[in-house]
Amino acid sequence: MYIDQPLQHYLDDLASAEPTPGGGSAAALSGALGAALASMVARLTLDKAEYADVQEEIKELLEQTEKLRDRFQQLLQKDIEAYGRLSACFKMPRDTDEERAARSKAIQAQLVEAALVPLEVTESAAELVRLCRRIAEIGNATVLSDVAVGSMLASSAGASAAWMVRVNLRAMKDLELVSVLSDRLGAALDYIAECSQQVTGIVGERA
Amino acid sequence: MYIDQPLQHYLDDLASAEPTPGGGSAAALSGALGAALASMVARLTLDKAEYADVQEEIKELLEQTEKLRDRFQQLLQKDIEAYGRLSACFKMPRDTDEERAARSKAIQAQLVEAALVPLEVTESAAELVRLCRRIAEIGNATVLSDVAVGSMLASSAGASAAWMVRVNLRAMKDLELVSVLSDRLGAALDYIAECSQQVTGIVGERA
Repeated sequence: MYIDQPLQHYLDDLASAEPTPGGGSAAALSGALGAALASMVARLTLDKAEYADVQEEIKELLEQTEKLRDRFQQLLQKDIEAYGRLSACFKMPRDTDEERAARSKAIQAQLVEAALVPLEVTESAAELVRLCRRIAEIGNATVLSDVAVGSMLASSAGASAAWMVRVNLRAMKDLELVSVLSDRLGAALDYIAECSQQVTGIVGERA
Repeated sequence: MYIDQPLQHYLDDLASAEPTPGGGSAAALSGALGAALASMVARLTLDKAEYADVQEEIKELLEQTEKLRDRFQQLLQKDIEAYGRLSACFKMPRDTDEERAARSKAIQAQLVEAALVPLEVTESAAELVRLCRRIAEIGNATVLSDVAVGSMLASSAGASAAWMVRVNLRAMKDLELVSVLSDRLGAALDYIAECSQQVTGIVGERA
């Protein structure tokens, strides 16, 4: 698990010619960074007299940002595994008709998983930007630029993972499923765009 | 040095109520992720017969993306140190006029450094997006979505660090210097916006 290894190791492997980790995993890490900053601002609002009115809500928000951080940390590794399984499918033998059929079926099944993992990154990023918006509204005003950065890193996690979703959707033959997943992706990206703009506005006013 | 410690450690400390690491350091890490992905795509273009014509240029690009990655890795730590020194200045005694004057002078000096580190993140991000654009033009067409992600993570590194630059500029009293640094920040952000849009266009056409 990369999360337990030195940060340098992850960055070196990301930069290497090995196919994993790749863009989907890096997008998930950007999401984890964003969630961590949202948690930091929530924590810096806890037990502060000026923010007595919002303590209960801030505690709930912190619970949710920490859950999302954990999710992104898992997705960082899950993307590597999903992509590794897809690569293995591409290496299956294709000398006979039976082999070609089996290989194609395996690839198609694995493409779905390889699309679902980054799609979950984008959908989790949408959820995180929503939490950042609320933290920007009620959180400690002296550290709002950190929640603005958290929202920004979440947005780019979502948009980055979307590239990887699209790559996999393009190769999928089940067009009905492609349409369903495309719609989910579009909805999450629209939500991120709207929400992250609101965060910028709120932080601009309050900071 | 965080770079030599487990990734989990960095993320946990980022999420903690400790003031460092904060948004500027996380922005630098996003830049390092972007540079690593640009390096990956460059490496996956090396020694490929279809890309024989661009081998020399790709080697040079790889050298530059790896230099930038190293720079971002250093900035990740430098931001923590600069912010730590600024926090220390705020804790200086302020009981007498002399103490207040010394404290104010120390804060002003340290604010410059605390602004210059994230400004370098934004300027390095601008440089990285430029390299991503060229890699998008001539790099291995099968992995272009990874360079699109690299460019996206670089852009958000630049925009994220800009929040931290502005926070420090707002507290600075040397208005001439504020104006010079604001101009540098604006120029880098404009360049990033223009260049990253071009990357999206190029990858859309070639992928």
